[in-house]
Amino acid sequence: MKSIALFIMFLVSESIILAQDLNNIQYPDYTKQSVRTEIRIPDIPGYRTLKCDFHMHTIFSDGDVWPTVRVVEAWEEGLDAIAITDHIEDQPSKEHVSGDHNASYRIALPVAEEKNILLIHAGEITRKMPPGHLNALFINDANLLNVNDPAEALKAAKKQGAFIIWNHPGWKAQQPDTCLWMPMHQQLFEEGLINGIEVFNELEFYPVVLDWCISKNLSVIASSDVHNIISHSYDIEKNHRPMTLVFAKERTPESLKVALAEKRSIAWFDGKLAGEEELLTAIFKASVSITPTGKMNSKKRDYYEIKNISSIPFEIESINGDLLRLKPESSIILTLNINEFENIRILNLYTGSESVLKVKYPF
Amino acid sequence: MKSIALFIMFLVSESIILAQDLNNIQYPDYTKQSVRTEIRIPDIPGYRTLKCDFHMHTIFSDGDVWPTVRVVEAWEEGLDAIAITDHIEDQPSKEHVSGDHNASYRIALPVAEEKNILLIHAGEITRKMPPGHLNALFINDANLLNVNDPAEALKAAKKQGAFIIWNHPGWKAQQPDTCLWMPMHQQLFEEGLINGIEVFNELEFYPVVLDWCISKNLSVIASSDVHNIISHSYDIEKNHRPMTLVFAKERTPESLKVALAEKRSIAWFDGKLAGEEELLTAIFKASVSITPTGKMNSKKRDYYEIKNISSIPFEIESINGDLLRLKPESSIILTLNINEFENIRILNLYTGSESVLKVKYPF
Amino acid sequence: MKSIALFIMFLVSESIILAQDLNNIQYPDYTKQSVRTEIRIPDIPGYRTLKCDFHMHTIFSDGDVWPTVRVVEAWEEGLDAIAITDHIEDQPSKEHVSGDHNASYRIALPVAEEKNILLIHAGEITRKMPPGHLNALFINDANLLNVNDPAEALKAAKKQGAFIIWNHPGWKAQQPDTCLWMPMHQQLFEEGLINGIEVFNELEFYPVVLDWCISKNLSVIASSDVHNIISHSYDIEKNHRPMTLVFAKERTPESLKVALAEKRSIAWFDGKLAGEEELLTAIFKASVSITPTGKMNSKKRDYYEIKNISSIPFEIESINGDLLRLKPESSIILTLNINEFENIRILNLYTGSESVLKVKYPF
Amino acid sequence: MKSIALFIMFLVSESIILAQDLNNIQYPDYTKQSVRTEIRIPDIPGYRTLKCDFHMHTIFSDGDVWPTVRVVEAWEEGLDAIAITDHIEDQPSKEHVSGDHNASYRIALPVAEEKNILLIHAGEITRKMPPGHLNALFINDANLLNVNDPAEALKAAKKQGAFIIWNHPGWKAQQPDTCLWMPMHQQLFEEGLINGIEVFNELEFYPVVLDWCISKNLSVIASSDVHNIISHSYDIEKNHRPMTLVFAKERTPESLKVALAEKRSIAWFDGKLAGEEELLTAIFKASVSITPTGKMNSKKRDYYEIKNISSIPFEIESINGDLLRLKPESSIILTLNINEFENIRILNLYTGSESVLKVKYPF
Repeated sequence: MKSIALFIMFLVSESIILAQDLNNIQYPDYTKQSVRTEIRIPDIPGYRTLKCDFHMHTIFSDGDVWPTVRVVEAWEEGLDAIAITDHIEDQPSKEHVSGDHNASYRIALPVAEEKNILLIHAGEITRKMPPGHLNALFINDANLLNVNDPAEALKAAKKQGAFIIWNHPGWKAQQPDTCLWMPMHQQLFEEGLINGIEVFNELEFYPVVLDWCISKNLSVIASSDVHNIISHSYDIEKNHRPMTLVFAKERTPESLKVALAEKRSIAWFDGKLAGEEELLTAIFKASVSITPTGKMNSKKRDYYEIKNISSIPFEIESINGDLLRLKPESSIILTLNINEFENIRILNLYTGSESVLKVKYPF
Repeated sequence: MKSIALFIMFLVSESIILAQDLNNIQYPDYTKQSVRTEIRIPDIPGYRTLKCDFHMHTIFSDGDVWPTVRVVEAWEEGLDAIAITDHIEDQPSKEHVSGDHNASYRIALPVAEEKNILLIHAGEITRKMPPGHLNALFINDANLLNVNDPAEALKAAKKQGAFIIWNHPGWKAQQPDTCLWMPMHQQLFEEGLINGIEVFNELEFYPVVLDWCISKNLSVIASSDVHNIISHSYDIEKNHRPMTLVFAKERTPESLKVALAEKRSIAWFDGKLAGEEELLTAIFKASVSITPTGKMNSKKRDYYEIKNISSIPFEIESINGDLLRLKPESSIILTLNINEFENIRILNLYTGSESVLKVKYPF
Repeated sequence: MKSIALFIMFLVSESIILAQDLNNIQYPDYTKQSVRTEIRIPDIPGYRTLKCDFHMHTIFSDGDVWPTVRVVEAWEEGLDAIAITDHIEDQPSKEHVSGDHNASYRIALPVAEEKNILLIHAGEITRKMPPGHLNALFINDANLLNVNDPAEALKAAKKQGAFIIWNHPGWKAQQPDTCLWMPMHQQLFEEGLINGIEVFNELEFYPVVLDWCISKNLSVIASSDVHNIISHSYDIEKNHRPMTLVFAKERTPESLKVALAEKRSIAWFDGKLAGEEELLTAIFKASVSITPTGKMNSKKRDYYEIKNISSIPFEIESINGDLLRLKPESSIILTLNINEFENIRILNLYTGSESVLKVKYPF
Repeated sequence: MKSIALFIMFLVSESIILAQDLNNIQYPDYTKQSVRTEIRIPDIPGYRTLKCDFHMHTIFSDGDVWPTVRVVEAWEEGLDAIAITDHIEDQPSKEHVSGDHNASYRIALPVAEEKNILLIHAGEITRKMPPGHLNALFINDANLLNVNDPAEALKAAKKQGAFIIWNHPGWKAQQPDTCLWMPMHQQLFEEGLINGIEVFNELEFYPVVLDWCISKNLSVIASSDVHNIISHSYDIEKNHRPMTLVFAKERTPESLKVALAEKRSIAWFDGKLAGEEELLTAIFKASVSITPTGKMNSKKRDYYEIKNISSIPFEIESINGDLLRLKPESSIILTLNINEFENIRILNLYTGSESVLKVKYPF
């Protein structure tokens, strides 16, 4: 049939209030249901891909929200693990908010258990540069980190088995024009008191830090460092917050800790990945397939379907410089001379401050 | 020209990192800018239409956020006025959060001044039914409301010049199967201690309360009563939180108070309006126009453009029962026998628990 | 770190035009890339789930688009198979458009091969009621269907091995107040000239037809019958066009034809499914899982994650009448007395005009 | 109140089919209503701002749609005027599509009258370079343009009072590495046979052409040149198609023609404007306001609201190089030393191939 005019619609007048409901009519669809949407990133051979954000704040330091909000946000966005890292030394709300340095963890934990979110006990050691700010993850008691000397604070964390991340080394408030590996960082590194570094924080990428991580065998980390509400800070309808992809044997805190210690992580931010070549290659190959559709074309070019099953976009450059933008969770079909794709560069996958991933087809 | 194939695009490889940026590259577009989006509701003759939410919580009672968040949310969503109404008697976070009953107002005020949001000093008197929960607006000191007898608390508010709203009279936790005007409410009403009532709260509509407001000359109120983050509670990309439209001479707290006292308000929730016939008629006429396009059609029907300039949808029923759904801020063109539109009913504009607005065309 | 003010951003002025580009600067992101987004509906044991729309028009009858548009639309939306069913007898554009009844198939076929869309050769026999409109699928030559007697036209299709669908039996233009199985339909049915029926067409559901399909062992079909552009007809950013889910051994036209002949289909429209109990049960069980999260709650209630991996929403009613709306591709966590979920009804899965699917947990 | 658990909702089971509807239940909300959404661009002193697209195709040349689709698309998107410019010389569908060169105009006109869209009679003269492709607008009979010599074709158009636009001078298919004003163009220009030029076409910007327009006093034009469906070509949920803003005394074809002849136009594409300084200044000043909020800040900085009432974004650069991105139809509040805004540059408003608009505050 063909609709003549849908403009005027003959409907039962469902909007008229029925007598029996005069006391209380509920419109549950008017309010928003709390649901989890999975982030689609495939596992890689031998490991599960865990989506993690290890840096965020609550009203127990200088954040805007009650600690449980951080768990609900992470669960809804499809994350696997988070760490609440309230500043040990910086509590601007302390006129009104009191509690020891474990309070935010303790308050958030029951909701994390309900939601099956891995909540990592943590705290942020917050000093001027050097050494700057550092997150201690996998601790038992954040109160013990509250000591004057920053190296002592880090040792107190290490004594608890902490994994320590140097946060935003290139933050302009502390390093206006540079991003420097200072003697103090070298010393902390040699003592095992720096185990990973943020190559990305909030909206900033520190390319030189990626080189440090690769050369010194440190874990690459990307964090939101969110103080505000996540959905006010990132457009989570269209993007994802920055996060660290960790490749763990199992979805447990123990396995996560081992994976971080063994440097199995990638930083993901603003449609870009940064990390070690081998891991980037694995995630790319698990995400993207190129398949001939069977349809031949003239001039040595055939039809191929290029499919991306992951939530990560990819920017693929062929030998002759053509650029192909592959959106998340979508396919395109194009005519290719497949030889031009034998060696491709993935322009949004950084293996170093000045290098991107190279991949050979077929994969 | 006609594009042959846009699949492969010849681009300058802009993603490759340039040498000069190795320390810190910023992606400001990755984070979300805080912007205000206006709600488009026209003024009515003689008055400005103010969009208000007079009921919300922070961590100073049982809410999830720091008080300043409430101002930023309201500003971004296009509201003109809000009241933070933390419970006087209910502070589940008090192990960790301390402060007198004016703290949330005091903390939020500087941000309200920055953002030019009218912040009404208020508090929620929180008792079992009767009298239930009541919001006192336009007070000076919420601490004086902390007395045992609820009537005394209301009198302490009134002494400060308060406008008092009876909240969610049909809330199932207090009134499982009914929605009752009890003797105590009659007494408070006679003493001038109830000045408005919520006909809508969070996701609940109490139609019978609309009748009470009309017959007793009380202001109709719609409130979010938000405890969580607004964007977690309502899908504000597509809808608006519940709010009270107040028709004031000017955009000032004083003028707002006068307007409430003179009952110039409409409740707006889930695409519906509830209130007095005269105000609903004014807002409908200021929003909707029907204009012939000049093009004639056969069979006594002409082409008309029906245009809605407001953010409110309208469901228009013609004499013969046809239903027309007019989306916010959009126009449709249809062929009409205009006689069928001489008397229309607006099915989503409630003048009472069992009646909707009737309008005569032309208007 | 905590951002002080992101309002003013220090950026390289990237917008200034560089000298080398003065002739032609391209903004590929400004135009929309043609990508395929998969519909996520799991396969069921033994079969692949193919998403099909067997009813649509082009300018070769009374549609608005060139035939290739239908293939591109279907590919982008994630469909597997379509049939272009231009009217044999109704060509209002014939002053300007000429071609035999196979032209739209012939024009669309090369693009279907490129895109790997199964394009079923078809045509719509378009008569007044009875018999009304019928689609003949899997034909070789639509021109042979252009004969006066409708039964002869259907026999000409059958001779080519056609699968024949009775379209929109309750369409008001032909059946204003009823939806009738007439003697002529009985006769066609007995001669094998009706093999499936549309229980849904464009925006109309004919519940009684579902009963006919179940009792007479006919395939249930849902179709868009689109004449306009699909994205003008349905809000495909949020919904899907109506479609027939066919459960086939393989993704081939032959296997599709066998599946239809063996009645392995479900109608999907506006968040609802209609079909045989066994198939509905299979698709529900393949889509939804209920898992305890391990966290215990008081009062005999535990925490459960209810997860829906499909693009279909489900409305689950527990024994005691609670309703749970499960959105597409999302999870919720709630506290349940699981006993209340041992027998559930799925309110949006119709097994008949007055019955919905019942499922027993665990499944 | 505070919601305990919204997960399970107690609802009337509205989804169960009621007995009386067994023949035909309609879901009008499932299909998409055709509505017009206005583009918000203010008028400028003395003129109305008309939104126009003067370049598009239908199946009567090499486009994909029936002519009426072009009118409906334009009406829904909020345009005021369009021209269908089917190629005079290029009709790849002519095996199946027949009609003279006025057919698409004739078919589209009744719908344009219904929708109150100004439909400009036009045709595209389609030749190899030079002179390339040219659109003749405001003609009476496109058939008379079907002559061998391109200059003669243009003269035949001019004789009908045509306004002639040179299309995509830098199109790579005709001008691979250059964008040249050739002797033939100089001759046509001198004969009054070029009256405007596209500085933008589909996804391409020709900056050098903007200089030509300014120096030779020609109208700047931006066009979609759409062949496909508009919503497949541009993401019209978020952006607008390229269009020409014409500043006319009235919303009539006559006034539009005068405005084009008097060079009152701006090209709008991908968030950018290109045109004459005076017109750009007028549109900027009509769109953007900067107002102190009354709140003082320390350090010589006050709070200002910067408001953009138009659908155009603006990128404002202050004296000291700060960049402010002002989204369409939104406000921001920031602390400014207003002296830094006394001279601003609007980086997305091009006054020439290498220059952008400068504005002095206050305005």
